[in-house]
Amino acid sequence: MDFSGRNIMSIQDFSRDELEHIFKIASDMEKFVKTGSDMLKNKILANLFFEPSTRTRLSFVSAMYRLGGKVLGFDDPKMSSRAKGETLVDTIRVIESYADAIVIRHTIEGSVTLAAEYSNVPIINAGSGTLGHPTQAMLDLFAILREKNTIDGLTVGILGDLKYGRTVKSLAYGLANYDVQLVFVAPEQLRMRRDVLEDLSEEGKSIREVSDLDEVISDLDVLYVTRIQEERFPDPSEYEKVKGYFRINRRTLKSAKDDLIVLHPLPRVGEISTDVDSTKHARYFKQSSYGLLVRMALLSLILS
Amino acid sequence: MDFSGRNIMSIQDFSRDELEHIFKIASDMEKFVKTGSDMLKNKILANLFFEPSTRTRLSFVSAMYRLGGKVLGFDDPKMSSRAKGETLVDTIRVIESYADAIVIRHTIEGSVTLAAEYSNVPIINAGSGTLGHPTQAMLDLFAILREKNTIDGLTVGILGDLKYGRTVKSLAYGLANYDVQLVFVAPEQLRMRRDVLEDLSEEGKSIREVSDLDEVISDLDVLYVTRIQEERFPDPSEYEKVKGYFRINRRTLKSAKDDLIVLHPLPRVGEISTDVDSTKHARYFKQSSYGLLVRMALLSLILS
Amino acid sequence: MDFSGRNIMSIQDFSRDELEHIFKIASDMEKFVKTGSDMLKNKILANLFFEPSTRTRLSFVSAMYRLGGKVLGFDDPKMSSRAKGETLVDTIRVIESYADAIVIRHTIEGSVTLAAEYSNVPIINAGSGTLGHPTQAMLDLFAILREKNTIDGLTVGILGDLKYGRTVKSLAYGLANYDVQLVFVAPEQLRMRRDVLEDLSEEGKSIREVSDLDEVISDLDVLYVTRIQEERFPDPSEYEKVKGYFRINRRTLKSAKDDLIVLHPLPRVGEISTDVDSTKHARYFKQSSYGLLVRMALLSLILS
Repeated sequence: MDFSGRNIMSIQDFSRDELEHIFKIASDMEKFVKTGSDMLKNKILANLFFEPSTRTRLSFVSAMYRLGGKVLGFDDPKMSSRAKGETLVDTIRVIESYADAIVIRHTIEGSVTLAAEYSNVPIINAGSGTLGHPTQAMLDLFAILREKNTIDGLTVGILGDLKYGRTVKSLAYGLANYDVQLVFVAPEQLRMRRDVLEDLSEEGKSIREVSDLDEVISDLDVLYVTRIQEERFPDPSEYEKVKGYFRINRRTLKSAKDDLIVLHPLPRVGEISTDVDSTKHARYFKQSSYGLLVRMALLSLILS
Repeated sequence: MDFSGRNIMSIQDFSRDELEHIFKIASDMEKFVKTGSDMLKNKILANLFFEPSTRTRLSFVSAMYRLGGKVLGFDDPKMSSRAKGETLVDTIRVIESYADAIVIRHTIEGSVTLAAEYSNVPIINAGSGTLGHPTQAMLDLFAILREKNTIDGLTVGILGDLKYGRTVKSLAYGLANYDVQLVFVAPEQLRMRRDVLEDLSEEGKSIREVSDLDEVISDLDVLYVTRIQEERFPDPSEYEKVKGYFRINRRTLKSAKDDLIVLHPLPRVGEISTDVDSTKHARYFKQSSYGLLVRMALLSLILS
Repeated sequence: MDFSGRNIMSIQDFSRDELEHIFKIASDMEKFVKTGSDMLKNKILANLFFEPSTRTRLSFVSAMYRLGGKVLGFDDPKMSSRAKGETLVDTIRVIESYADAIVIRHTIEGSVTLAAEYSNVPIINAGSGTLGHPTQAMLDLFAILREKNTIDGLTVGILGDLKYGRTVKSLAYGLANYDVQLVFVAPEQLRMRRDVLEDLSEEGKSIREVSDLDEVISDLDVLYVTRIQEERFPDPSEYEKVKGYFRINRRTLKSAKDDLIVLHPLPRVGEISTDVDSTKHARYFKQSSYGLLVRMALLSLILS
């Protein structure tokens, strides 16, 4: 399976076989976290963050470093040439001569696709508009696989802002490669978008939509909680209505299965109470460390 | 020719022989872009950008990385000690113990010269006030040389803001080392500064000044287009008058020589229509990649 | 003496023996500044600056680079996940899987202690609230040791904002390990805090408090000047009263001992006139370069 030079645009571009290959390599990467490696010694990654991000950006940096590579870029577009009015395509055409691959996070839908069209080096989508966040979806799947030893057969609840969240959409498509039961938990106004539901139905996924977590908590093997992202709401008043609708705490999890795992893409801002952190269910920090392995795997596959 | 420890302050400090030596080394650097090198393995470059820049800053970073070196610094003076009121000289005296060479971009004329006076490590001027931008001029010359196989004998048109642009001034002095015909194309209020014209005349350069590109387009071997930089105009109303005065597009280039090359220091904000990008004339993105080679050459010469 | 994995929280956690071990290693590091080293080749340092800093941040970066290590992080919390409302503990729990040690500068007292409680990797306090700045104190002591060949027996004057400055408090506790005479010079409203004075008395330190430098200048072997930090004053009007109270210049130093050395943590904003820079007394820039050595020593001790 050759990923050399491949763009990482959407989770939907990856077959189950390809995902499993990536996960195998990700597990192999574990040893390099401690020992380091020179695998990407002469490679440069450009990190172009047109939207702020700590975790995703630093995760890519750490992944390159652990493999011996180097990273350049920016995380504050106000300070960059964009302030001088340059188009994204022009930026890409310059940066491609400085780096061997380019990671982009951008607010505008389609911007990453446009970048990939013009770039001579592979482009990795690190979150673009509400379109998707493929490397997050891969790490979510990898976290489930590693923590539950399987994805097939699981009942996975996804809770939070299913309408505007880019993480959940990518995750749902990723899970569609497996034999899972999907349970979408959201208030009326934040339900999963119709087109996504139709896509999933077409793939024969069994989906349940509820607005009350209590109704389904005892059925779940995985509870994936997401942040209500104020910045994605077109109308602030709509945000005010749902803010704090969900707050997972020890009491919420009382009737959960013993081996339920709780995931979250982080950062959290109250969706999961810190009293959950020390329970056997909490895996969101471990999940974040799996992200490093998946990104090491992707970078090693694309760049070598 | 020994450049070890030398400051890069102004294009005027370099003789034709020295420039040609730099260009020879720059061509040698091409192989390291793909393979990497350990030439500057234990060297640290400090990038001190008191003015925002993507391209120049990242170009220096990439150049250091390709040669095995490391880079530290800042690109947002608001976040730095400057916010605490430190003088540039004090900053330099601290940074010189952290790095082996210092790149500076600064808004204030003379600041880079002052830095060089106090620094124990070589200083590279990456654009200072309206004074000059020597590494840009070197890469411009190198781009012409590589794309036309010669600089002598060419007719070079320079178009745009010739009064406030720091790029064009340095380029004009750089070209003065060669047997070229210079054509300055600018509206009345943005004409090349008188002192520069006098310097060039003294060196025996033949110069033509016009305000209409159509008049001269068919004579040109090189058309160098620059951005109208709003931020350099003391008076915004003056900027409004000339904004959009020039817009190069396919139609503009209709009567151009078949082998005319169009250059631009980038970023562009409309001075060259994107319909030019796919013509045989467009070389501005390639020009940017030559910049990497020139900066690798300079860093290797200064630091080893 | 094993420092592997140890947190650097406060100067008070270090015995004289331990400090002297660090200083010995710091002197050993001098050779690596020029030649480089692969000692920390596969190590990653995270630099988390929730408050702006050029000098301390870049000093840690340079120290890692000189030992072959890598650095990631941020220096502008507005651009980071903090803007999304993440707690420091969550940030630490994510970053600890990206890096082998974490440097933190934070505005809030206790934040660094909290971070160390949760982190699986060593934490280095790079200045936290008004609590302390241990690596600065170590480099101050090291600078005195190297420039005077001893610390015991010296009379050390500390001048400036002794109430709000975190540097001076750490320095005073550091000096308490040695047989020194301490002279605190400050206006009434910026005197050293009572609890610190009591701690020092308990350790048997002889302390003199004056508000006029002239009174004591001829007794001093070391004059440590600090910045009046506007940002630490709860009330701006209080700042206005003392701003510019002290201005060290050649005249101030007229009756000083011949071998008095003047130190300053930098950046200075007028507390020491530039006419002092060229005197035999000035050591503040050299002091800054000692900081690099001390941080190299600490990183090598903690990470290997």
